[in-house]
Amino acid sequence: MSVIKWNIRAGAYYDSVVLMQLQRGLVGLPGIIDAGVVMATPANRELLLANNLLPDDANANPDDMLIVVKADDEKSALDAIDKVDELLTRRKSATVSEDFRPRSLNAAARQLPDANWVLISVPGRYAAGVAREALDLGKHVFLYSDNVSLEDEIALKKTACEKGLLVMGPDCGTAIINGIGLGFANRVRRGPIGIVGASGTGTQAVTAHIHNLGSGITHAIGTGGRDLKSDVSAITAHQSLDLLSRDPETKIIVLVSKPPSADVATGLISAAQATGKPVVIYFIGYPSPSRRVGNLHFAISLSEAAEIAVRVGDQESKNIEEPPVANLNLRGLFSGGTLAYETMIGLQAGITPLYSNAPITDNQLLKDPLKSEAHTIIDLGDEFFMVGRLHPMIDNDLRIRRMKQEAADPEVGMILFDVVLGEGSHLDPAGELGPVIKEIRDKRPDIEFVAMVIGTDDDPQDIHSQIEQLKESGAEIFRTAAETVEYISLRMSKNNKQKYAPVNLEQLKRPLAGINVGLESFYESLITQGAQAVHVEWRPPAGGNEKMAALLSKMKSKK
Amino acid sequence: MSVIKWNIRAGAYYDSVVLMQLQRGLVGLPGIIDAGVVMATPANRELLLANNLLPDDANANPDDMLIVVKADDEKSALDAIDKVDELLTRRKSATVSEDFRPRSLNAAARQLPDANWVLISVPGRYAAGVAREALDLGKHVFLYSDNVSLEDEIALKKTACEKGLLVMGPDCGTAIINGIGLGFANRVRRGPIGIVGASGTGTQAVTAHIHNLGSGITHAIGTGGRDLKSDVSAITAHQSLDLLSRDPETKIIVLVSKPPSADVATGLISAAQATGKPVVIYFIGYPSPSRRVGNLHFAISLSEAAEIAVRVGDQESKNIEEPPVANLNLRGLFSGGTLAYETMIGLQAGITPLYSNAPITDNQLLKDPLKSEAHTIIDLGDEFFMVGRLHPMIDNDLRIRRMKQEAADPEVGMILFDVVLGEGSHLDPAGELGPVIKEIRDKRPDIEFVAMVIGTDDDPQDIHSQIEQLKESGAEIFRTAAETVEYISLRMSKNNKQKYAPVNLEQLKRPLAGINVGLESFYESLITQGAQAVHVEWRPPAGGNEKMAALLSKMKSKK
Repeated sequence: MSVIKWNIRAGAYYDSVVLMQLQRGLVGLPGIIDAGVVMATPANRELLLANNLLPDDANANPDDMLIVVKADDEKSALDAIDKVDELLTRRKSATVSEDFRPRSLNAAARQLPDANWVLISVPGRYAAGVAREALDLGKHVFLYSDNVSLEDEIALKKTACEKGLLVMGPDCGTAIINGIGLGFANRVRRGPIGIVGASGTGTQAVTAHIHNLGSGITHAIGTGGRDLKSDVSAITAHQSLDLLSRDPETKIIVLVSKPPSADVATGLISAAQATGKPVVIYFIGYPSPSRRVGNLHFAISLSEAAEIAVRVGDQESKNIEEPPVANLNLRGLFSGGTLAYETMIGLQAGITPLYSNAPITDNQLLKDPLKSEAHTIIDLGDEFFMVGRLHPMIDNDLRIRRMKQEAADPEVGMILFDVVLGEGSHLDPAGELGPVIKEIRDKRPDIEFVAMVIGTDDDPQDIHSQIEQLKESGAEIFRTAAETVEYISLRMSKNNKQKYAPVNLEQLKRPLAGINVGLESFYESLITQGAQAVHVEWRPPAGGNEKMAALLSKMKSKK
Repeated sequence: MSVIKWNIRAGAYYDSVVLMQLQRGLVGLPGIIDAGVVMATPANRELLLANNLLPDDANANPDDMLIVVKADDEKSALDAIDKVDELLTRRKSATVSEDFRPRSLNAAARQLPDANWVLISVPGRYAAGVAREALDLGKHVFLYSDNVSLEDEIALKKTACEKGLLVMGPDCGTAIINGIGLGFANRVRRGPIGIVGASGTGTQAVTAHIHNLGSGITHAIGTGGRDLKSDVSAITAHQSLDLLSRDPETKIIVLVSKPPSADVATGLISAAQATGKPVVIYFIGYPSPSRRVGNLHFAISLSEAAEIAVRVGDQESKNIEEPPVANLNLRGLFSGGTLAYETMIGLQAGITPLYSNAPITDNQLLKDPLKSEAHTIIDLGDEFFMVGRLHPMIDNDLRIRRMKQEAADPEVGMILFDVVLGEGSHLDPAGELGPVIKEIRDKRPDIEFVAMVIGTDDDPQDIHSQIEQLKESGAEIFRTAAETVEYISLRMSKNNKQKYAPVNLEQLKRPLAGINVGLESFYESLITQGAQAVHVEWRPPAGGNEKMAALLSKMKSKK
């Protein structure tokens, strides 16, 4: 029968490399079956339990290191526990000489004055403090640590913005700056593609695939996963898009993220349009609004994002015209429910707020189907309109009345409608709608009409004559929802003005020199890649004893 | 100043063509500015109000016809109201002779014994009754009417299934059977593409675009929008897929719908795979799981669905191998959160139930991150696992333990994991994971291991040797999430057994002959297209008086 023994090191700070190496050291000892060395959080206790390693009587706090061994016999177990200190010391002495290592960020900055980046991977509760120091020193921050509060993230990013600095993260796993990988990063050749990534392995998968396809990367900038939520409002992503748009070496931009908040998506899409460069967007798990809208390309997988970026790069670089800007509202009056729905899918990322009587999400629901607000898409075939009334494909009356109603609203800049031809439909919709459009445009030439005409050459209405009549009345004509969506997205797009001090591009392009605070392997990786780097022999304030740290902090502030 | 006058026709049934024509007739009279003729439902009263046509004192019930005129003067208004009866009569006499028109479905069926379809567009509250009669007569039903209850829809479809008949709808706007359009339908050439559409204008847009691209349609079968919700469980869509899979003239199938319920999507995707034919799927507004999984192609717009179908049709028809079937559960153990997420996006439509500690939707949340259930994807880089522990890209311990745990579950058939190489990552993950895989497979050769390896030639780990080691241990290797998803989807797919009496294909291919009950224009359209058709001179039971109708129904059932 096996024996379990345990030991607690109370309230001290140990980094996770120490914990891993101690555990492996213990498992290597004679008679030891298994071992666990963890900070005694509830989750870690559950993990020990799942591995049959949780002693019934171990009374440890989440801040304590809990050391557990399972052995063939009592003696082996006790021997192993006795060896803990020795194993901890052996680990220390095995590493490179630490004599010349600075013990603070300030000291490190003096030692490597060229350092333009600080890499931070200390535990979350200390990370924001270190990041603040880094920004005070005028350095960009690569913040690998997670468990940083949202308030800290927002405050750090606002400070960074004012200083023209980047804060990548928290929870930023990867970046490539000037050919040097930070954190986890694949070795990829340099090339014309810049990445903005709110997702770590997403960015790795895209950069690796781009390399494997024969192309390369200028910079891959990480933002951290929360950057694209409303609270943070994509500060880092916006800075990065702006930066890459100004970088002449970046010809194509890839933007990868889990689905952002709706308002954030709109802002980012506008900013991406405003770069004037081809931007490949992959909002993972978000329905693709289209394959392409002007300079924007929408991908449906990580590998496809890479493939599109490489393909676009191979093409002749086209001059992308600045789209005309319409600042007024869109009103869509549809007879086809699915056409209305597909149009909303396509527009919702770029045009907000968008309302409808047949919305995709609850927050898009129009309060009163008879009164449009902001941008509105109405499905006139919806039950509300249909009791005792012919379908709007047969009877144009309701749509004509609504067109006039929309045109009376001075906030309206575009009226969109579908014309579905074919068997069963009205035999001359253009004959009824055309004169109304003409009449409205005589009074309001500023209102643009856009018609989506669905039909074939063989339809009873003569599609060519229908299109001709609508064109004569002044409407723009498209034959698919996809083309219509692309056109409207370009026409309604807004320029996104940069509100922050721009990040200094020349400084970013200087050889990367970094100060590393936290995981030593990230320092070693910088050195291996030929970058200048300094590792800070960091210890938490007061050795991780929080009460003591609070006291120290109070004393400092009293000085 | 203008004058408003009104008139009410209480409790009588008027079809919507009558209402429209009366309104147009009134507007054409001298001195009349505008007119409204509607069933006096709350929605219609609101519409009248929006058009300044609602009289303050008109006290009409929803079942009443409310006639309102706005005139230049009192006399014109009163004259117009006086003309209502005359206008109603004039409308009648203008139509084709109605002498030989049957007044019941039974009579129509005797008059046109070849009729295999009944088109129903009467008001919703009468529609289910007519559909039931049609099924009793052994006819397929095209149910254009909306406002049919969910209970009625389910009951009708179950009955239809038992009889090998189709009920398209309720709220089915379009279909093309044997080249004849039902309801609203574009005239398109015949060709190799069959459509199953849960969306009316969606089907029209796809069929029209296919025609415009030079190809054509075998049959386009509508299901009605609610068919793909859990309650109805896609009865009509399943029947239709089965039918088209047996039709030798249908070489490619397109399936178009708003996003179905998750369980319904899974069933449909399995059924689509089982057809063995190329199936283009467009679940409007649902994130595309992939571009292609075996014989399934996923589109991101209506027009693209058509384009893919035409393109696939132009290619050499490939023999699609029946995918091997694994009936056991999948467990994915990821170090990369985004790779886990993208994998779930890809798998969730086809593999259910799917759980995760980092789910896409709330109902996928795994209760205990330490215990997998059914199909489970674990993000081992999630905060829960990460306090005081190295990232799973650096430390393989947690994943190795979890692999062993999953392998101890007899329900597990496949273990998926990612290996993310590059700077910062473990220098020999395959060296640690490979032996564990080998050890597990020695005991459980039935468990398949699938690895997604992300990295480049230049990464410090030597990707080729990593892949070689993993292959030797018995793992299947893929280099992108997209390829991994495709492979797993094929391996885990289940054959979907048809539960119902199959629809008779030979009968479907007989020349279409239809009985039309409701909108006369649908009858006229059948005749114009050269189909045999009979129009039923339908009137609601007891002239639309519901109390009387209930009484009549009681008396009938007492007989």
